[in-house]
Amino acid sequence: MRESLVAAAFQLFVERGYEQTTVDDIVALAGVGRRSFFRYFPSKEDVVFPDHEGCLARMTAFLDESGPDHEPVERVCDAARLVLRMYAENPAFSVQRYRLTRKVPGLRTYELSVVWRYERALAEYLRGRFSNRPDGTLRADVAAAAVVAAHNNGLRSWLRSDGLGDASAEVDHALAHVQRVLGPEPASGGPARRSGADGGGARDGDEDDDDVVVVVSRRGAPLWRVVQEIETTLGRDPA
Amino acid sequence: MRESLVAAAFQLFVERGYEQTTVDDIVALAGVGRRSFFRYFPSKEDVVFPDHEGCLARMTAFLDESGPDHEPVERVCDAARLVLRMYAENPAFSVQRYRLTRKVPGLRTYELSVVWRYERALAEYLRGRFSNRPDGTLRADVAAAAVVAAHNNGLRSWLRSDGLGDASAEVDHALAHVQRVLGPEPASGGPARRSGADGGGARDGDEDDDDVVVVVSRRGAPLWRVVQEIETTLGRDPA
Repeated sequence: MRESLVAAAFQLFVERGYEQTTVDDIVALAGVGRRSFFRYFPSKEDVVFPDHEGCLARMTAFLDESGPDHEPVERVCDAARLVLRMYAENPAFSVQRYRLTRKVPGLRTYELSVVWRYERALAEYLRGRFSNRPDGTLRADVAAAAVVAAHNNGLRSWLRSDGLGDASAEVDHALAHVQRVLGPEPASGGPARRSGADGGGARDGDEDDDDVVVVVSRRGAPLWRVVQEIETTLGRDPA
Repeated sequence: MRESLVAAAFQLFVERGYEQTTVDDIVALAGVGRRSFFRYFPSKEDVVFPDHEGCLARMTAFLDESGPDHEPVERVCDAARLVLRMYAENPAFSVQRYRLTRKVPGLRTYELSVVWRYERALAEYLRGRFSNRPDGTLRADVAAAAVVAAHNNGLRSWLRSDGLGDASAEVDHALAHVQRVLGPEPASGGPARRSGADGGGARDGDEDDDDVVVVVSRRGAPLWRVVQEIETTLGRDPA
């Protein structure tokens, strides 16, 4: 019933336009009554985004299940991938909705409020994880916004390809950029470290702080020489 | 006239609540006709945000005036400060609106669409500046989102202090965090200097071949992160 309402709605949106389609038109085509429509969807806008509530619930559950060993930025990237999966499961529908949303300002606004709820969910999780750090809420908000922006950049690339490209590859590429810039953060307990605040190496953590390698190189030296030197010094192969 | 409509509207919103106030109530208190209201404001929502259109126009003009010597991320931070200035010019009004917006979901949605337009303006500018870089649009979108998130984090801190704190100090602090993380970028032509990733990387001076790059890395850091940081610091691709 729910699916047939969504299908009927999109058929009409495409044929007549979103504004020109009424809930009465939709229920007539689907062969059900108005009350059935409103049992599933509070408004006509909601039928355009039938799956976001479920996805938000999955994201919240996923974040709630996180443990202290999860690197926080990586974890929110994985949470964002749940949204991508929802889109990628039904490429034709997602592309159709993307085109519709771009044409109808009211739907664009609706979508912004959905995106904002995803971003708040990610930020809330990060605020918890960063609560002991200086500027924890600031870092959390910035990281959540960056992850959402990167996810949406990758998602839109895929939608603009009419869903023909590799959605996961697009989004993985975009999220990798954010992870390079933002994570892992120093207090995450993992091996990787990040210089904090003012460029000094922030290092609140559990590892032996003496374990620092200093590489001094001429700027003119070829990069492979520098890398080789680091490998030799660290006594191991590239990760 | 415009100001008296805004003043009347807010007086009623505070006294009766936003939803319980009609446009008729507002024009009656302001002593003008309905048509005057709609000459200034397309809807009741718009009277809550009377100054954003002007601020968006100022921001766009400011970005259009940018030259090639402006460091891009710094420039969008300065553009974001135009929004802050608008809020800070009228603390009592801004705080009142903040409280109202948090209570009325429709206004929250309206505000999201305004924030989105600011973010798009910043992203468009950055896309132009980053057009020759790999992943230019991705970097632009992420940086714009990070700047907006940081600005809003600082702005909200100030609003929650009932406008009593130092708005500029809050936002400067937040934007400085973003600038540390995201910019200046190495290819921007300035004396780029970036700390990041797993170690502090700094270089002094310009193109002098005697320039020395010092990489400080923890032994635990994955090698790819170290290499990446070196590449970023040197501003070039692997040899």
